[in-house]
Amino acid sequence: MSDTNPASGTRDFLAQEVRRRQRAFATVREVFERHGFEPLDTPAFERLDVLLGKYGEEGDKLIFKILRRGEHEATGEADLALRYDLTVPLARVVAQYSDEIIEPYKRYHIAPVWRADRPGKGRFREFVQCDIDVVGSDDRLADVEVMVTVAEALDALGVRDFELAVNSRLALHGLVEAYGIPEELEETAFVALDKFDKIGPDGVAAELRERDVPPDVVEDIEHHLHAEDVRGHVRELLMGNERGKAGLAELDEVIELVRDNIPTGTVSFAPFLARGLSYYTGPIFETFAPGLGSSIASGGRYDDLVGMFTARDISACGGSIGLERVLEVLDDDDAATSSTAVLVTVFDDEGRADAVRVAGDLRTAGLDVDLYVGDGDRLGKQLRYADRKGMRYCVVRGPDEREAGTAAVKDLVTGDQEPVGLDSLADHIRRLQESHE
Amino acid sequence: MSDTNPASGTRDFLAQEVRRRQRAFATVREVFERHGFEPLDTPAFERLDVLLGKYGEEGDKLIFKILRRGEHEATGEADLALRYDLTVPLARVVAQYSDEIIEPYKRYHIAPVWRADRPGKGRFREFVQCDIDVVGSDDRLADVEVMVTVAEALDALGVRDFELAVNSRLALHGLVEAYGIPEELEETAFVALDKFDKIGPDGVAAELRERDVPPDVVEDIEHHLHAEDVRGHVRELLMGNERGKAGLAELDEVIELVRDNIPTGTVSFAPFLARGLSYYTGPIFETFAPGLGSSIASGGRYDDLVGMFTARDISACGGSIGLERVLEVLDDDDAATSSTAVLVTVFDDEGRADAVRVAGDLRTAGLDVDLYVGDGDRLGKQLRYADRKGMRYCVVRGPDEREAGTAAVKDLVTGDQEPVGLDSLADHIRRLQESHE
Repeated sequence: MSDTNPASGTRDFLAQEVRRRQRAFATVREVFERHGFEPLDTPAFERLDVLLGKYGEEGDKLIFKILRRGEHEATGEADLALRYDLTVPLARVVAQYSDEIIEPYKRYHIAPVWRADRPGKGRFREFVQCDIDVVGSDDRLADVEVMVTVAEALDALGVRDFELAVNSRLALHGLVEAYGIPEELEETAFVALDKFDKIGPDGVAAELRERDVPPDVVEDIEHHLHAEDVRGHVRELLMGNERGKAGLAELDEVIELVRDNIPTGTVSFAPFLARGLSYYTGPIFETFAPGLGSSIASGGRYDDLVGMFTARDISACGGSIGLERVLEVLDDDDAATSSTAVLVTVFDDEGRADAVRVAGDLRTAGLDVDLYVGDGDRLGKQLRYADRKGMRYCVVRGPDEREAGTAAVKDLVTGDQEPVGLDSLADHIRRLQESHE
Repeated sequence: MSDTNPASGTRDFLAQEVRRRQRAFATVREVFERHGFEPLDTPAFERLDVLLGKYGEEGDKLIFKILRRGEHEATGEADLALRYDLTVPLARVVAQYSDEIIEPYKRYHIAPVWRADRPGKGRFREFVQCDIDVVGSDDRLADVEVMVTVAEALDALGVRDFELAVNSRLALHGLVEAYGIPEELEETAFVALDKFDKIGPDGVAAELRERDVPPDVVEDIEHHLHAEDVRGHVRELLMGNERGKAGLAELDEVIELVRDNIPTGTVSFAPFLARGLSYYTGPIFETFAPGLGSSIASGGRYDDLVGMFTARDISACGGSIGLERVLEVLDDDDAATSSTAVLVTVFDDEGRADAVRVAGDLRTAGLDVDLYVGDGDRLGKQLRYADRKGMRYCVVRGPDEREAGTAAVKDLVTGDQEPVGLDSLADHIRRLQESHE
């Protein structure tokens, strides 16, 4: 027997799971549209040269490459590759359709990406990314719109009590200056500082030492990090230099506007939040929720990236929702487990054409109807089929009912069965469904 | 400058086109659900061995293969491949989840597939397939359900006046027997007969000769094909042998049930319809519509295929809608060209926080709202942005309006502008939108 599992790191989705996912995608899409973002879709694969060199050495290794075809297949070379994220395709689209795209370009993209990561618990090689971006504006309102929209989407998905942690690369530069960290060690120092919440002041100091920050500088920083109100202390330090001051002003505007305009959740200044990727240039954010270990949404301003395929600099900021993570923990199974469909059974050979017609009439009336199409199965088997598929109501038309112009509607939960005139069948079933919702 | 076109044979979809496509997918999905079909989704790629050898030699050449990764990349070998159709994944799923899937299993799958065809006008290397199948029933009602559902979906998509041409492999076998065509030439004779509508009796006869059907047999057939009522004549011939009789009975039941239960379109016996693929085993159909050259939907019964990964025979029948083809010709641009969103403009620096709040309130009231986030642009530029994006109404709040607790609502089509109290702003805009729908 062949192996019929899906390829390693990928998943099959049967009906219930597809419906759950489609519902979550629709929810998010609806929020994005309500906020004036417009959809974009791009192909699953790009030319290899479009992707290579955009994700660093480690990223390049995780790209799924597609073998050349025909006579070139024997070369063992690749010319195409599966989409690794939604940002490089966005950059390509912005360059390609500059005449059609109106800036500020607010777009959303919800689509699978593929990464040849080692598959693990909750880590997949095919997973859906969910991005919004504003291209062509360096106004802080763009950053605010991204954060507010992400927060609304999380709320609509049922994620509550989340915390939006906001920082700014500008403030981080100011902080590093205030700490006296040499400029060439800035990026590596960010990585250490970012761990403050996890490993505390002493842990950060140890990491800074490991990362070759001079011992006297580290000593000073360690002292700062032990301050009673660390956040307030950082604010004071930031006021001591230009970049720090500008960063704080930026942060305060963004945080205030976001705070006043999100339906739920809190927003706060996170002085050591650095975000792994070094391409961010302005405000950055991560979002945490109780019970969801890692960040469930994040983003920021990245002014030098979207112009990669053009001759001009293009401002941009964006956010990404970890939809797969949210789907993993979301408690929304109720609606998906049972079907709203009604089963029209086939009573006997004489009733076949009649059953097709009754099913058609109910569908025309707007009901979801499954007609039993198994081969000559007894009524009991048909009712079991309905029950296993979560269908509550079955329509039965035997010779007597056909003669009388009625149908029996069987409720599989209560066992009740009552005759209903064909004319009022659809209304009757709809009333039953509504009374049991 | 880099090449920023999408890879050869693939397409980018900007907002208007994504919305058009999403709407068509949703329409079709809704019809499938109404007919009791349930969704399935499978990964974009499969292990190479799952796909190889399933599509014939020519098909195998069109499979996009994915290079092995890491240390194995240098071998130039592939271990994965992009999905080529939705039928092999269905067969794999049916084998893998036999405990969870309840037969008859009615599933739909709308998803992209990838084929390394030579790209051409209207021929793409990435395109969406749209399939329904019933697995585990050899009852004719299953075939009927498939055809009725396909017809309803076409109707819902706006395709009218289509013709559903139905035949049966059983009837074709009977016809070949009646014609006296040697059994080993059956498949090749089907190919020639299938061209009857295009090339006429003499053309078919010539083709049959080329395909080594004995001259005296061809002479007889040519005579038959010249009959005044060819269809009626075929019926008579079919009544002369067992397979022909059984095929006709099957066809008559299917055609009658379908005819009585489709909202539009006609259904008829197509005595020479053979369908290219030799895997069909029962009733088969193609659907043609005026103005859409090739077949827009087709399918049939294929009882030996879905069991390919199991030890048992599994009956199945299905249909496929050429959604890409329908999308190409569908005249539905009207709804997609203009946006329903309202633009909230930013009048001056003092009005920034206010604009964010007004946008938020309108969104809470359920309106789609785009907040202008360009950097310090004058009102004129903001209104132009709205106009170019197809937004009709703009909200303007200058110092006077803010003072008075009102907003000016500008209609970009009429040029009208009127002050409205903030409290009734959402209702006012909704009324305007409804009056101009």
